[in-house]
Amino acid sequence: MVSVAILGFGVVGSGVAEVLSTNSEKIAHNAGQEIGVKYILDVRDFPDSPYKDRLVKDFSIIENDPEVQIVVETIGGVGPAYEFTKRALLAGKSVVTSNKELVATHGYELLQIARERNLNYLFEASVGGGTPIIRPISQCLAANEIDELYGILNGTTNYILTQMIQNGMSFDDALKDAQEKGFAEASPAADIEGIDACRKICILASLAFGRHIYPDSVPTEGITGVTLSDVGLAASGGYKIKLLGRAVKSTGGKVACYVGPHLIGENNLLSNVEGVFNGIVVHGNAIGSVMFYGAGAGKLPTASAVVADIIDASKHFRARKQIDWLESDSNTIFDPANLENRWYIRCKADLSSAEELFGNIVALGGEASEIAFITEKLSRSALEARLKDLAPLSVFRVLD
Amino acid sequence: MVSVAILGFGVVGSGVAEVLSTNSEKIAHNAGQEIGVKYILDVRDFPDSPYKDRLVKDFSIIENDPEVQIVVETIGGVGPAYEFTKRALLAGKSVVTSNKELVATHGYELLQIARERNLNYLFEASVGGGTPIIRPISQCLAANEIDELYGILNGTTNYILTQMIQNGMSFDDALKDAQEKGFAEASPAADIEGIDACRKICILASLAFGRHIYPDSVPTEGITGVTLSDVGLAASGGYKIKLLGRAVKSTGGKVACYVGPHLIGENNLLSNVEGVFNGIVVHGNAIGSVMFYGAGAGKLPTASAVVADIIDASKHFRARKQIDWLESDSNTIFDPANLENRWYIRCKADLSSAEELFGNIVALGGEASEIAFITEKLSRSALEARLKDLAPLSVFRVLD
Repeated sequence: MVSVAILGFGVVGSGVAEVLSTNSEKIAHNAGQEIGVKYILDVRDFPDSPYKDRLVKDFSIIENDPEVQIVVETIGGVGPAYEFTKRALLAGKSVVTSNKELVATHGYELLQIARERNLNYLFEASVGGGTPIIRPISQCLAANEIDELYGILNGTTNYILTQMIQNGMSFDDALKDAQEKGFAEASPAADIEGIDACRKICILASLAFGRHIYPDSVPTEGITGVTLSDVGLAASGGYKIKLLGRAVKSTGGKVACYVGPHLIGENNLLSNVEGVFNGIVVHGNAIGSVMFYGAGAGKLPTASAVVADIIDASKHFRARKQIDWLESDSNTIFDPANLENRWYIRCKADLSSAEELFGNIVALGGEASEIAFITEKLSRSALEARLKDLAPLSVFRVLD
Repeated sequence: MVSVAILGFGVVGSGVAEVLSTNSEKIAHNAGQEIGVKYILDVRDFPDSPYKDRLVKDFSIIENDPEVQIVVETIGGVGPAYEFTKRALLAGKSVVTSNKELVATHGYELLQIARERNLNYLFEASVGGGTPIIRPISQCLAANEIDELYGILNGTTNYILTQMIQNGMSFDDALKDAQEKGFAEASPAADIEGIDACRKICILASLAFGRHIYPDSVPTEGITGVTLSDVGLAASGGYKIKLLGRAVKSTGGKVACYVGPHLIGENNLLSNVEGVFNGIVVHGNAIGSVMFYGAGAGKLPTASAVVADIIDASKHFRARKQIDWLESDSNTIFDPANLENRWYIRCKADLSSAEELFGNIVALGGEASEIAFITEKLSRSALEARLKDLAPLSVFRVLD
């Protein structure tokens, strides 16, 4: 019997308790022993919960109980979650989390503490919700040199964009709709401004390329600048607009990492990733391209990924999982402005002046004095030099 | 340093040697130690190979060398591959394979020998080529009760169907094209008659549902009956024809497993899985639907999956991986003829007689006295009772 303590009894934390209970037989079979919840830490009371006798408010009870071997951190953020994770590891307990902000911000430090004590710090649920991605990158693709990964990493923004694309909703209406359905929070900034996607691409890139990539080094653009007009013009050329996090390794080994809206060609698998779903493409030198797809959020999908980590941790008390990376250094990143790709541009101009500036372009139409077109491959720096007299309304990368 | 012996120096075996050499640094990092090829077993000579000094023809050299900890079986088939795998396990060596025929036919027996000796028998490359699927099902979805899985499991047939759909090639021309490009063998029966897909769905279903499902209990239909006329009629309704292996668990715990052509709706992610690629959808009670996509065959993608297993085996000499299932029994399977779904039917009849037989149908058009339509949900048994006077030309399941 493995004893687990859950920190934070919100959506994910209560989902973890539910999955552990509903699928207890299958989980015990896979873990080789039963897994039971001994404590749940929350500042709130839950007088009607079947777990009410296991609720505690003082973390030191968990910290000092040698029976607790695995701590599940589903508090979120970098306040108490950070403190409790550190203290749990220092007390000799493995930690499993869904907290992308904490892993993206302090992952290297926490992994180092875990490594020194031969413990596991696992975070499958921090990226892609229920979609398996951390373990496939670290294990299934272990024989590959990975050179690129990108994906739809945020379900809220993908839901909003899907509403705009499929139902012609404005951004504001689609956001309101997402909030009503519980897919977006009352304060949606972390989602719509790309901050959540940024944390997730940082975690994936750190894992794939071996050095911590910190969110503050990653240029991040959300979807607040995407208009219905952009959606329609993109569609006229066979494209859908999707918010992607992307990381590309240069031949010299440095990594360019950024978040922004992209026009995706209709033959790209990501173009069919709709609503709150996530899709992540990884490219390796032996395997070529692989894609992982699944629910990007939600109580039970996310809990399912957390519980998979609990099972894994319970089987690896002495054989640590190789999910790990080094500290960032001056050779870790390069500026994504140097990455070349085709660009979508919407601006107040006429096609002939656009052609004069960019040579070969693909016109997407437009109305009155406003046009949209797609350029040939250019770096962002080269693009901006040519754009300066054009006062563009929208500038997005194109990925076929 | 872990010493490996590769059995069979064909496409996959030589790919394994190549990946181990090309990505040796990354592999050593992930395995925690270097991995070296000590022997390669083949009946042929390779006088120009850089590995020629390591080639042996007598398996007992490998069997009796205590330095060899991992045997890689890439011979294929159930002759010498079966014998050598057994002998390797009995000699205390873990075995890694890409051999789907052997795993589908003798998987339970070989896993049992491995289990009794606390060894690993790993076969990630046996399904999906390079696409990660075995490990995600056994680990990432370990917290789920899986109720259904299906997928495009054979790259050759998917290439042929893609040529028919995209370029209007006949089946015979598309097969010839696939053979010229090296995607189909000179004797293509195992692919086009669905036998290869059958072996793969058996492996996935055994893993997901916990009991060995043998190929001879799985009704299997290939793509030789799919005509250009079917492809066109399906397209007129927004469908693509894809060969799927599918396994569904009943509420009583029995599993229906079969292989056959399906009409796939355009919003289904599998509809964008083209050419030699594979895509596999798994549905679990907590996670919902997830999909795995990647190259279904090919030297380096398949080798990449084999090497991931070698790394895993080298890290688990004493902690066995939980990739395992029980023997089949009388409660393992039920007849897929009982599964209800919509059906595509092409026949020589008129729509009014089809409507008389099936009630609500969706007509797809047709020419002269030949029509095609899609029924409402029916079991195969119920379908066949109504079909008997209709002399149908094509009958395929529909999956939206």
